[in-house]
Amino acid sequence: MLHLIIMAGGSGTRFWPESRRARPKQFLTLAGERSLLQQAADRCHPWIPVEQISVVTNAAHVAETNRQLPHLTRGHVVPEPCGRNTAPCIGLAAWQVAQDDPDAVLLVTPADHLIRPEAEFRATVERAVRIVQDRPQASVLFGIPPAYPATGYGYIERGAPIGGNGPPAWAVSRFREKPDEATATSFIATGNFYWNAGIFVWRAARILELLAEFQPALYAGLERIAARAKSAGWETALAEEFSKLPSISIDNGVLEPLAARGTPAGSVIVIPASFEWDDVGSWQALPKVLGTDAAGNTVAGTTCQIDTSGCVIRTTGDHLVATIGLKDFVVVHTPDATLIAPQGDEAALRKLVALLEERGHSRFL
Amino acid sequence: MLHLIIMAGGSGTRFWPESRRARPKQFLTLAGERSLLQQAADRCHPWIPVEQISVVTNAAHVAETNRQLPHLTRGHVVPEPCGRNTAPCIGLAAWQVAQDDPDAVLLVTPADHLIRPEAEFRATVERAVRIVQDRPQASVLFGIPPAYPATGYGYIERGAPIGGNGPPAWAVSRFREKPDEATATSFIATGNFYWNAGIFVWRAARILELLAEFQPALYAGLERIAARAKSAGWETALAEEFSKLPSISIDNGVLEPLAARGTPAGSVIVIPASFEWDDVGSWQALPKVLGTDAAGNTVAGTTCQIDTSGCVIRTTGDHLVATIGLKDFVVVHTPDATLIAPQGDEAALRKLVALLEERGHSRFL
Repeated sequence: MLHLIIMAGGSGTRFWPESRRARPKQFLTLAGERSLLQQAADRCHPWIPVEQISVVTNAAHVAETNRQLPHLTRGHVVPEPCGRNTAPCIGLAAWQVAQDDPDAVLLVTPADHLIRPEAEFRATVERAVRIVQDRPQASVLFGIPPAYPATGYGYIERGAPIGGNGPPAWAVSRFREKPDEATATSFIATGNFYWNAGIFVWRAARILELLAEFQPALYAGLERIAARAKSAGWETALAEEFSKLPSISIDNGVLEPLAARGTPAGSVIVIPASFEWDDVGSWQALPKVLGTDAAGNTVAGTTCQIDTSGCVIRTTGDHLVATIGLKDFVVVHTPDATLIAPQGDEAALRKLVALLEERGHSRFL
Repeated sequence: MLHLIIMAGGSGTRFWPESRRARPKQFLTLAGERSLLQQAADRCHPWIPVEQISVVTNAAHVAETNRQLPHLTRGHVVPEPCGRNTAPCIGLAAWQVAQDDPDAVLLVTPADHLIRPEAEFRATVERAVRIVQDRPQASVLFGIPPAYPATGYGYIERGAPIGGNGPPAWAVSRFREKPDEATATSFIATGNFYWNAGIFVWRAARILELLAEFQPALYAGLERIAARAKSAGWETALAEEFSKLPSISIDNGVLEPLAARGTPAGSVIVIPASFEWDDVGSWQALPKVLGTDAAGNTVAGTTCQIDTSGCVIRTTGDHLVATIGLKDFVVVHTPDATLIAPQGDEAALRKLVALLEERGHSRFL
């Protein structure tokens, strides 16, 4: 059976003040009527039954996750005592699913990306599942055809095509983390590179095998947690052991060394995504994903603009935000805090958040 | 006895969103701990007893006036059914005071200017009162020594000095409304011009005589209102008659023609003010009256600035306003509306207010 694992462990300040420590980006309604997390579940439901959907999130965000996704099966919101990157997250979820369904196939996806249309996403998932059914050892990655030489994403270089009658797919020859712009441009020119969407399909048993092989310490920790499964001590074991797991991504910890080893063609496979994808990395991403009005602004809520262009302006609860003479700014009003900042200056936003902390204003974070 | 008449009929949009139709500038706490109206009363109290203080305000603002000045004597908040400029306002107040105190001397002052220190204001008032006691026909104006060639104020040109042992004073030779900058510069060069602060001292009986002479229609209307004084029909008479009075300022309607007629020296008199005065005309005035911090900003409330200078930033109720990269802007957060606008663009602010009205957002006005 196909199980959906949504990784909702993200935190960060790039959407402050809408995002807060208690409510990071995946819980925000940035585009559409539902939060990014809700959309991540919605787009796979009901073709993946709700009993086969799990969310892994920080223990502090379990309540918000249950509030946003009240239909999830009890026990399917897996609490991480702390953030440990994707390898421990995926290991924990894979172990939990495999307990009840040893033949489970996992679709693992971040909670905070924007993907549409759903039909194309489903089609890509189904292509991946067919590959995994044909090749039980395969790890399938979704590659996004790059739209421009992005320097903020990881790239996947494809190698030999996977033969057979299946959908187009390639062996991954290597992973390249965040290149400079010239390198990114050269990647795109070859036609052999994809953005790494961080979406994976594989058998639960297979990723556990791979973790045992490439991350034995991590796997041993998972086993110690598993030994207490369904016992009263499980949450204690989780709290104690999880924080000791190495903090490493599944790409760095498993897939890169696997691909680099020159394993039999087809064990790490990339398939091109046919859906639109955006990781909605900052306020600056909103005009692209939401579009702009005639004045070039991207607005939400009760606003009024004079001589204002290229701005993202967001407000809530019928609070009016009126702007005059503002160019390429972000204005975000929330009930207790308002940000006015130039678009794209993420370093200054990080500095601001640090300054608020330093000045004892952490109630706004 | 000396009576204080505070003219609190102002309205306007220059302090939107702090000012609203229901709460114009005089009711705002822009500098200090008390509103401009409260400060206008405070600075004369208790050396003018509270029974001798009246406020003339729009009928719609009587409740707010009573809220801000709860110690006023009942009946001493005089409701104007509509705004009719200063001549009808002063006439109504003078008539009301003269009923009970035929020898009353009036100190008439706008409610929405910033004046300090109080001791210097009191000293100037006392000089004016001495002049009126010596010369019962005199109308005394307070002239502000001009600090720069302002184009937004009226100017008073002084003529012959008033002789005698009294404080320095001059006959007013003429009034000059809002000059261009070159003219204003030439005014200042002569040393004979003052800004017109709109503050007057005269006997109540005298200003009523002058209204009868120069504004007979207005005076006749006041008599019709007065005829119903202390009767049940007074408020009805006021509502009916007041709106029919000509809308004219006391300067244009009485003092200018009186001065121009070449009346006996000393009937329209200007005395130089020894206090600091600011009419706090717009958000842009606040840095001057409140000062600036090390970054050149004038802030009030919970704020955090990065790379922000020359800004006025105001917020209320522990709502955080955080700004990055903003220069010479005004940012004003109120519970239901936030303005972000370049400093000094009052035309754009008027346009914004009109646009809000047009779009059905008058709840914010």
